[in-house]
Amino acid sequence: VDRVAETLTAEAARQLDEADPLRAFRARFRLPEGVVYLDGNSLGPLPRATPARLLDVAEREWGESLIAGWTAHRWIEAPARVGALIAPLVGACADELIVADSTSINLAKLVLAALALRPGRRVVLAEAGDFPTDRYMVEGLASLGLCVLRTVPREAVAEALDGETALLLLSHVHYRRSARHDMAALTAAAHAAGALTLWDVSHSAGAIEVNLAGAGADFATGCGYKYLNGGPGAPAFLFAARHHHDAIRQPLSGWMGHAAPFAFEDGYRPAPGMARFLAGTPPVLGLAALEEGVRLVAEAGIAALEAKSRLLSQALIACVEAAGAGHGLVLASPREPGARGSHVAFAHPHAHAICQALIAGGVIGDFRAPDVLRFGLAPAFLSFEDVRCAAATLARILDTRSWDRPAFHARKAVT
Amino acid sequence: VDRVAETLTAEAARQLDEADPLRAFRARFRLPEGVVYLDGNSLGPLPRATPARLLDVAEREWGESLIAGWTAHRWIEAPARVGALIAPLVGACADELIVADSTSINLAKLVLAALALRPGRRVVLAEAGDFPTDRYMVEGLASLGLCVLRTVPREAVAEALDGETALLLLSHVHYRRSARHDMAALTAAAHAAGALTLWDVSHSAGAIEVNLAGAGADFATGCGYKYLNGGPGAPAFLFAARHHHDAIRQPLSGWMGHAAPFAFEDGYRPAPGMARFLAGTPPVLGLAALEEGVRLVAEAGIAALEAKSRLLSQALIACVEAAGAGHGLVLASPREPGARGSHVAFAHPHAHAICQALIAGGVIGDFRAPDVLRFGLAPAFLSFEDVRCAAATLARILDTRSWDRPAFHARKAVT
Repeated sequence: VDRVAETLTAEAARQLDEADPLRAFRARFRLPEGVVYLDGNSLGPLPRATPARLLDVAEREWGESLIAGWTAHRWIEAPARVGALIAPLVGACADELIVADSTSINLAKLVLAALALRPGRRVVLAEAGDFPTDRYMVEGLASLGLCVLRTVPREAVAEALDGETALLLLSHVHYRRSARHDMAALTAAAHAAGALTLWDVSHSAGAIEVNLAGAGADFATGCGYKYLNGGPGAPAFLFAARHHHDAIRQPLSGWMGHAAPFAFEDGYRPAPGMARFLAGTPPVLGLAALEEGVRLVAEAGIAALEAKSRLLSQALIACVEAAGAGHGLVLASPREPGARGSHVAFAHPHAHAICQALIAGGVIGDFRAPDVLRFGLAPAFLSFEDVRCAAATLARILDTRSWDRPAFHARKAVT
Repeated sequence: VDRVAETLTAEAARQLDEADPLRAFRARFRLPEGVVYLDGNSLGPLPRATPARLLDVAEREWGESLIAGWTAHRWIEAPARVGALIAPLVGACADELIVADSTSINLAKLVLAALALRPGRRVVLAEAGDFPTDRYMVEGLASLGLCVLRTVPREAVAEALDGETALLLLSHVHYRRSARHDMAALTAAAHAAGALTLWDVSHSAGAIEVNLAGAGADFATGCGYKYLNGGPGAPAFLFAARHHHDAIRQPLSGWMGHAAPFAFEDGYRPAPGMARFLAGTPPVLGLAALEEGVRLVAEAGIAALEAKSRLLSQALIACVEAAGAGHGLVLASPREPGARGSHVAFAHPHAHAICQALIAGGVIGDFRAPDVLRFGLAPAFLSFEDVRCAAATLARILDTRSWDRPAFHARKAVT
């Protein structure tokens, strides 16, 4: 514990928290007592406004207006409205982003849209070891003969771009190591090879700055339940650069993506703009919860969030390295903040047991096989005191090897 | 009004309601005062239990358990659990049904799965004028060269089955006219031609008996927000006959359909059974609301629901025909209950204006261009008094031609 205090005293943490321009946002989340929640990169916590919003949508909007709710309460506009709220967080214009389906389904839509824009090219280039669903979806499309999935190691991505490549598909921030790609450079490289880009920004959106327009990105998708705080299984979003809109063919063409859904026409005519990426009826409850979650990060502003994320993660790395000194804990993420997302990974041979001991001690991070501990630094609600407390708990666990004893069941974090 | 009373007096309606074995279920829905809701076939009303369930999932499950909710509150099991609750309503076994995505997306998955089971055949045979999203989705897949959409008039469907047909795609109950297909006969005809069947049961499930197993149906999908009362944009469900399970390839292969989603393996391995139809992370809020909605119809039992649906719709036809006598209102649905779903359509040249006047009078049905009024008889909550009241309101509107006067703004139904 002393090792941590030498790095960050309780008083220093208090001063950092007092100087935090986002400190007021913490109270707008419901965070359980005695818990340090370092897994907001996996599932964001509950915004305090969300239960009341869900009640209002259910009791007043659905309960009283019934079918008329689609217009009376603008449910029909929710995919575009919540999309417009997300847009500035990822450097997109309001009309370039819409909320629909899941990240997986959106990946399929965007891969198919990209392939149609690059006739004669069939390769979707992806990174080995990237988040699995991205490659699983492309594998599925490849099994239909619609494309070829080519997977290369991270460092070989740029050089693997060639005249066969229709699409470069990458996670902006790696789900495990948190390494951040240079979106602008890789997009430029893809374009130079005549390919398009599709960025999965699930591990970026709402925590670090993403500049889809600035990078010239063609397509992107991301998840609503991580840093956007939309709740478990929240709807996802998708982005297409405006200059592609008119040419996009989106073959998962459901009625909500039709130019006139309620005309019940025999043939499909795509809606203008991003609306053609809608398929089925929008999930109104999920959209309402997502709207509340996004509102918090939108209000905080992405520049302030990234600035705080950098400070928090630097503090965490310093404190955890102090706690782990001599215990074989190794930083598995880039050290430089600009090369990282908002979570930090450490490797340890007993990472799983340590993660369980941390959870028992009130510090919730997560484990990724075989040996990675992930700590998410969601800047909208975490404090420097959280970071200090988590590291102090970790130090105690490592010093006492308490992760090695099944009887370890302390319920509260060290303070 | 007298014409309606001659057909069904208030006293007769009261007696029918007293004899209704499902009468207790009405109180378990929240129905606004002064409204007769004949649009439960479009959006089911709010079950009284749903707001509390949503609050519990948000505040206690998500708010307190955070990421641990996936196991602690069995969120991860919700798609299969709610699927198992729906299964007996459509004549399926619990392990043949799962909740996922939207009807549109599920249609794509099932069409692709069917095509893979019928190599060498490319035709998806559908009915002209059927619900558009079904055909729009197939159109999209056809644009990728994966199949050919062939659309024929309803009466020509059986004879159009041939050696090219991979799949017969039909709505069990027609969204507009409410005509019910003979699922067993058409499935047998499809099988005789070597084709598979995919039934959209959106307008059947929860209101009339569907026997997917008895009919030998191969695949089905349906909507959660109509008679299943799951709320606006509720998740949908899909069914595949068990004997197909091992052979099914589902190319929208997201991580939740993987045999081991949390192993983050490089290659896709399908989960056993229906779980391979999952793609992205399950929408926990939507699933919870759907579970409450389904619970009500499951408890009522589908045989009792269909029996009441038949009585209600027969009463409605009689009363509306009495109200419409001499006003050019024509039954547009089959008269025989077994040939119909649980809604009834009438045609009138001024259907749109009449529908608006009905809504202003507290009777909520809906309009489908150019000339159709639809009245949904959701048997779980409607009463015979509702039917009488709706018809009396309609009679007043027709007799006074009040639909022709923009000043018509009475807010209450005639009682």
